[in-house]
Amino acid sequence: MSSLTDRVSIVLVGTTHPGNIGAVARAMKNMGLARLRLVQPRVFPSADATARAAGADDVLAGAAVYDSLEEAVADCELVVGASARARAIACPALTPRACAERVAGESQGMAAIVFGREHSGLSNEELDRCHYQLHIPTHPGFSSLNVAAAAQIVCYELFLAADAAVTPSAAAGHGASNGSGHDAGEAVSHEEMERFYDHLQLVLTELEFLDPANPRHLMRRLRRLYNRARPDRNEMNILRGILTAVQDHGVTLRRRSP
Amino acid sequence: MSSLTDRVSIVLVGTTHPGNIGAVARAMKNMGLARLRLVQPRVFPSADATARAAGADDVLAGAAVYDSLEEAVADCELVVGASARARAIACPALTPRACAERVAGESQGMAAIVFGREHSGLSNEELDRCHYQLHIPTHPGFSSLNVAAAAQIVCYELFLAADAAVTPSAAAGHGASNGSGHDAGEAVSHEEMERFYDHLQLVLTELEFLDPANPRHLMRRLRRLYNRARPDRNEMNILRGILTAVQDHGVTLRRRSP
Repeated sequence: MSSLTDRVSIVLVGTTHPGNIGAVARAMKNMGLARLRLVQPRVFPSADATARAAGADDVLAGAAVYDSLEEAVADCELVVGASARARAIACPALTPRACAERVAGESQGMAAIVFGREHSGLSNEELDRCHYQLHIPTHPGFSSLNVAAAAQIVCYELFLAADAAVTPSAAAGHGASNGSGHDAGEAVSHEEMERFYDHLQLVLTELEFLDPANPRHLMRRLRRLYNRARPDRNEMNILRGILTAVQDHGVTLRRRSP
Repeated sequence: MSSLTDRVSIVLVGTTHPGNIGAVARAMKNMGLARLRLVQPRVFPSADATARAAGADDVLAGAAVYDSLEEAVADCELVVGASARARAIACPALTPRACAERVAGESQGMAAIVFGREHSGLSNEELDRCHYQLHIPTHPGFSSLNVAAAAQIVCYELFLAADAAVTPSAAAGHGASNGSGHDAGEAVSHEEMERFYDHLQLVLTELEFLDPANPRHLMRRLRRLYNRARPDRNEMNILRGILTAVQDHGVTLRRRSP
């Protein structure tokens, strides 16, 4: 298993205060992480970020900047989005510890832990791109964590989980592996999952099962279902094959009619 | 046992940046703690502290200021001092988790977790006043945590330990909920799943995607996928609806042909 350092990205979406970016970089480096990805930061680079990084300049210098969350996680097989909100349609929730164990228990694939804007967090559309929602336990009356504080907790749990993964005896009883009991085949990237959802939406529209004027609700529910299942490559080929068969079937029937 | 909130103080010694005091107050309140004690802060109160507290003004307003660590912990039966340094004569070291369990396991007495100056931490004389040294695991090459980040980790572990003390069952593994992390709606019976698989097999046969002479392999793979996802009732209704739409679509196309 390649080290967590190489496999885990911390993704910050729409960060307003550059100081927070620096503080996250420091939190990452403290816990042995290096891959920082920024989606539309308001200010970056910034002297404030460098000051708060307090020596984690290399993490800042290596940070990649993206226009969208989709691009930032395109190569990731596991995407976890932090959110304090309970959603009407929630994707499955993980605690920081369960999240770290899940990530450490994965095979070789890239993973991303995504943190949203200081005031509004991640949008529902952004959370739809996540396989899991990260929920940090807090006092109910004051649940809004600073983004760097939230990242610190997660990076700390990742560090402990990575340590446990290296020394398996320490991991015993830790729940280990993934909770889904999924003895997975080759994993599917975020990009491939997106292509599947595009294909699914197209076919459902052709079937007139989905109203193109208002696709959100249905697609969100289906995303939730399939993100939870996390199809492997073999299963994805089957799903795509079924969608194509539905399309071909329509064409075949049309051809049969004169 | 009285609640941890009432029994645990966070003590900051010689904090230079008032913003860090505010960030510690926020971290404390997020995790249900309220007792903040300051030993010779350079600036306090301060607008920077209030800004970074982001709503934890009550913790700041209630903060007590002392001239020495000795006075600040005079009423405490258990004193734990955070330090990244290995000392020549070390007092026994605790990880944040062990520290939280120790504090939660104490009887009624007051406990203090002490954090030192941003640049130099706690002096040896100050650590001599501590029963335990708190050592937060970090990457060896970059071990200096921001004081608020360190406090956040400890407050988080205290919150989990307090929660575990109140609800022992919830503490086990802390992975929360069921293994899939699925915050499920109304469950679907085994029988309903079987009806879904029958329907799926019928539609795939109509699509000529499945060979009725040898359906086993494909259906087994699809069963694995959907069993893993454990659809709730709502999702099952959608899946059945899609299958029916595929069947109706075929009928509609046939009718259109004369």
